[in-house]
Amino acid sequence: MTRRSLLGLPALPALPSLAADATVTASVQKLQLKHTWTTVMSSSTHRDVLYTTIRQDGLTGKGEGAGIVRYGESAESGAAFVNRLAPELARMDLRQFGKVIDWVLKQSEADWAAKAALDIAVHDWVAQRRGVPVHALWGLDPQDAPLTTFSIGIDKAEVIRQKVREAEAYPVLKIKVGLTNDEEVIEAVRSVTKKPLRVDANEGWKDKDEAVRKINWLEKMGVEFIEQPMPAHMVEETRYVRQRVHIPIIADEACLRPADIPKLAQAYDGVNIKIDKAGGL
Amino acid sequence: MTRRSLLGLPALPALPSLAADATVTASVQKLQLKHTWTTVMSSSTHRDVLYTTIRQDGLTGKGEGAGIVRYGESAESGAAFVNRLAPELARMDLRQFGKVIDWVLKQSEADWAAKAALDIAVHDWVAQRRGVPVHALWGLDPQDAPLTTFSIGIDKAEVIRQKVREAEAYPVLKIKVGLTNDEEVIEAVRSVTKKPLRVDANEGWKDKDEAVRKINWLEKMGVEFIEQPMPAHMVEETRYVRQRVHIPIIADEACLRPADIPKLAQAYDGVNIKIDKAGGL
Repeated sequence: MTRRSLLGLPALPALPSLAADATVTASVQKLQLKHTWTTVMSSSTHRDVLYTTIRQDGLTGKGEGAGIVRYGESAESGAAFVNRLAPELARMDLRQFGKVIDWVLKQSEADWAAKAALDIAVHDWVAQRRGVPVHALWGLDPQDAPLTTFSIGIDKAEVIRQKVREAEAYPVLKIKVGLTNDEEVIEAVRSVTKKPLRVDANEGWKDKDEAVRKINWLEKMGVEFIEQPMPAHMVEETRYVRQRVHIPIIADEACLRPADIPKLAQAYDGVNIKIDKAGGL
Repeated sequence: MTRRSLLGLPALPALPSLAADATVTASVQKLQLKHTWTTVMSSSTHRDVLYTTIRQDGLTGKGEGAGIVRYGESAESGAAFVNRLAPELARMDLRQFGKVIDWVLKQSEADWAAKAALDIAVHDWVAQRRGVPVHALWGLDPQDAPLTTFSIGIDKAEVIRQKVREAEAYPVLKIKVGLTNDEEVIEAVRSVTKKPLRVDANEGWKDKDEAVRKINWLEKMGVEFIEQPMPAHMVEETRYVRQRVHIPIIADEACLRPADIPKLAQAYDGVNIKIDKAGGL
């Protein structure tokens, strides 16, 4: 007995099969960066990114994800995840995208960037099929989208100044710190711009009193908030820091899922939500 | 500076105005019931229901809501809420339905059934505009919808048996109890059917040991779970009961919003989610 037979409704017409021409692909592309990208975590001249496509019914949805080494992911491991799912995924009806995405999320305990790449590709397919942009699927006003930041990696003062000049079009900057030259980096930025700044230490400061000193100095430099000042596991130390500074402290590496939030409530003022961490839109 | 100008994207084309023919209506209709409907809360021969329509761009979305007296709502108070919002709501672009529904939810601290009626009307409008059923807006498989129950109000044994016979098409029944004839009601049901039963006491039992005795008797009668055995405010007493019975205890009157859940965690096994309580889909 199904709900429809129970209610005396006629059976739904069988959906015409869409899967005949269906394919799911994964590929890794090496993006050459304009500047060497340095944070506390690594320094690199390129970025490997996972690209996925989902083709069905003559439409191709495209998605991408950038696995983060900090969470044990790479573009290659993401591609392996997508390739493992591809045969079954290609047989699913993408019109039932809510069901499809639920299924993808259950196929592993990790692979969040690869899940995000598939989620984006599915949403792209659905939006194309409906003839609308993705924001219209949820009835949102694109004018309400918040301003995001343009990130400036750690570098020597001279290069920093050049990067900030090149970022002229972007009204809010996020500055990476956490190595040995924090003051040099911030002073270089401020020597060429008065824009709102947000600062990300990527877990770089290990001493809580050093973190307090640096954050209070950053406040004087006009910084709006500080992201992940101390290592993710140092929740108590971060709470200590938060009681001694004025600008908000935002969790990034410390917060991957909603379940992480309760234990962080006293130590942080907010959370940096990333599609690659959350597994999709 | 907007996000689009920041990114060097062309301005979005102005949406053609849809609001020219827009109207929002509210009406109250008295539904005559086939049987007098009795629960712990009230007894009545009819039901006043709020109906709303939202018309825009040649399409009319329809919604309904049944305000619950227990929460200080009536069809009339819901209609007043809709009428208060109607002028501004009629000027909104329903294609941005996510924004519209967010706005509706913020217009009062109560009026949940009226909010639900508007939410349903908006979703109906959007689904018609897209040419799909509402479940397709979220990409769900309608075959996955769970079976719901058919409710049998409190009555004399003879009438109960008649109601159960008339409900032959419904595979799961919810039986209302909580007045003085609980055993009579359940035995009357069981005398004519072996279907799965769920029982709702609607806060009817005030004594925790009486609740334990009744629930353990209901378990022997093949009842799957008991809904709201004790008054919503008796959280500690309900926790006491839960430790002494085997079938799940479900919160209804005790749980209106997600924020209610933490304090109920030890006293209940689950929550009855109703669109009229939640303010929409």
